[in-house]
Amino acid sequence: MAIERVAIIGLGLLGGSVGLAIKEFLPNVATRGFDTDPQVRARAGQLGLVNTIASSPAQAVINADLVIFCVPVGAIPQAASQLADHLPADAIISDVGSSKQTVAETLKAALPGHTIIPAHPVAGTERSGPDAGFATLFQHRWCILTPGADVPPQALADLRAFWEGLGARIEIMEAAHHDLVLAVTSHIPHLIAYTIVGTASDLEEVTRSEVIKYSAGGFRDFTRIAASNPTMWRDVFLHNRDAVLEMLGRFTDDLTAMQRAIQSGDGDAMFELFSRTRDIRNSIIEMGQDDPRTDFGRADHTSDPDD
Amino acid sequence: MAIERVAIIGLGLLGGSVGLAIKEFLPNVATRGFDTDPQVRARAGQLGLVNTIASSPAQAVINADLVIFCVPVGAIPQAASQLADHLPADAIISDVGSSKQTVAETLKAALPGHTIIPAHPVAGTERSGPDAGFATLFQHRWCILTPGADVPPQALADLRAFWEGLGARIEIMEAAHHDLVLAVTSHIPHLIAYTIVGTASDLEEVTRSEVIKYSAGGFRDFTRIAASNPTMWRDVFLHNRDAVLEMLGRFTDDLTAMQRAIQSGDGDAMFELFSRTRDIRNSIIEMGQDDPRTDFGRADHTSDPDD
Repeated sequence: MAIERVAIIGLGLLGGSVGLAIKEFLPNVATRGFDTDPQVRARAGQLGLVNTIASSPAQAVINADLVIFCVPVGAIPQAASQLADHLPADAIISDVGSSKQTVAETLKAALPGHTIIPAHPVAGTERSGPDAGFATLFQHRWCILTPGADVPPQALADLRAFWEGLGARIEIMEAAHHDLVLAVTSHIPHLIAYTIVGTASDLEEVTRSEVIKYSAGGFRDFTRIAASNPTMWRDVFLHNRDAVLEMLGRFTDDLTAMQRAIQSGDGDAMFELFSRTRDIRNSIIEMGQDDPRTDFGRADHTSDPDD
Repeated sequence: MAIERVAIIGLGLLGGSVGLAIKEFLPNVATRGFDTDPQVRARAGQLGLVNTIASSPAQAVINADLVIFCVPVGAIPQAASQLADHLPADAIISDVGSSKQTVAETLKAALPGHTIIPAHPVAGTERSGPDAGFATLFQHRWCILTPGADVPPQALADLRAFWEGLGARIEIMEAAHHDLVLAVTSHIPHLIAYTIVGTASDLEEVTRSEVIKYSAGGFRDFTRIAASNPTMWRDVFLHNRDAVLEMLGRFTDDLTAMQRAIQSGDGDAMFELFSRTRDIRNSIIEMGQDDPRTDFGRADHTSDPDD
């Protein structure tokens, strides 16, 4: 593989996982990492997330074949400007952000003349920070690449081989289409989860203690993704505004229809919807994209706090 | 314990789990079960969900100390009318339904003069039917009892001891308050999940295959509860209409506020919400109501369908 030296800018869940996945699955690839937070750099060094902790973005990209921005998308412009003057001319520039149109524009503006291939590995957990990373995060997950028309085919092939080496499957897509697809499969689910957890927290008639005690009725599922990194998600909604608002409109239309069905006691409309939503879960499990075990396999892993 | 003979009406996930939990944790209690579906009765017999499969509701309640309706709440009136003439005079009548005000009214109307204590064990999975039950479903979960003022204290004490014997913790609550609490911790989460899965399925710009492939971005979480029993959930929304509409109104108000924040690029409003939703998950885990492992512990249990 052509990629031998990778610079990872940002050493949280994603950057740390990229570093650990390289160490495990591409052990001949050298990694240098940087994070603006000195405490994160220190912790990343203790954990061995990368071979070398750099003391500046400029130092991180020395001799790099591939530079991956693993910071919230709103932090990319500053990070890019800090290393722009030190980039090897033939390095591939990429990222892991959840929105791709604005990232493409941002990187082109900040790093003119460089080979830019925005990327999005569709993988993550509710944890964040350097301790959250793990080497298998990308196994069997899809990584979407959104190269512009001007990207050299060899660079695209190299980045594809890199992500496949980390265990991911590759899809090439227009950035605009990516942003629409992820709005519905990721961004709206997060927005809904954050919102209902906020709604439940703010009620006066129902106490916070009651919300927690009876959360096994369904609510607890939403609290997982509502525990995700607030900075990252703020930036996603700021940077994928149009697609998110479009998909949010579809969702609220459908929710209004269900509200009317409840108001009018239209059990048939409810039954019709509730009956056809099962299939999609079965398909997700068949495609290897979720745990086939009942209740995500967690049923036997909750415990009595008094035990 | 005073309860020695339990009749279970309905042998799906909940009825089957009650039967199996009795067998494991209260082995001296005898169980008889009935289901209107002959195939379910046959399967329940093979699985040993109850000691005796009855051929009619009337036969199921012979000599019962406790009769538990484990059918969708909309099916309770018919089931109650079928056994009304055969009920022992001192039997406790209870259920496991997710709404409590209408259940209390229904049972009082159908079974006048009997001791009625509506109950709701806040536990379940996305599976349904006789094969879905398991003995530990109620361990560490809360069971809410909503007795009327006329219930004899001894009957309430007996039912409490019964559920505690199955591993549950007990809360006594007004039926109206139960319905409001569960609207937010269970009913609205299910409605939202069903709706977003429906929205995603109906899109033309994003294919079903794309929704499935990129579901690990968050969407897949919602598909679990959207795979729940459609009949049961239709009945919940028909029977807890007012509380559901009230809580749905709160949620849609909050969602509209987030929509405006996205439209106007108000990152501070987003960050404020996204930052305070983490705590509630931590509290749920501390209270033993969810799996403490990252990603519900499922991260290592998804597989490549081609492997």
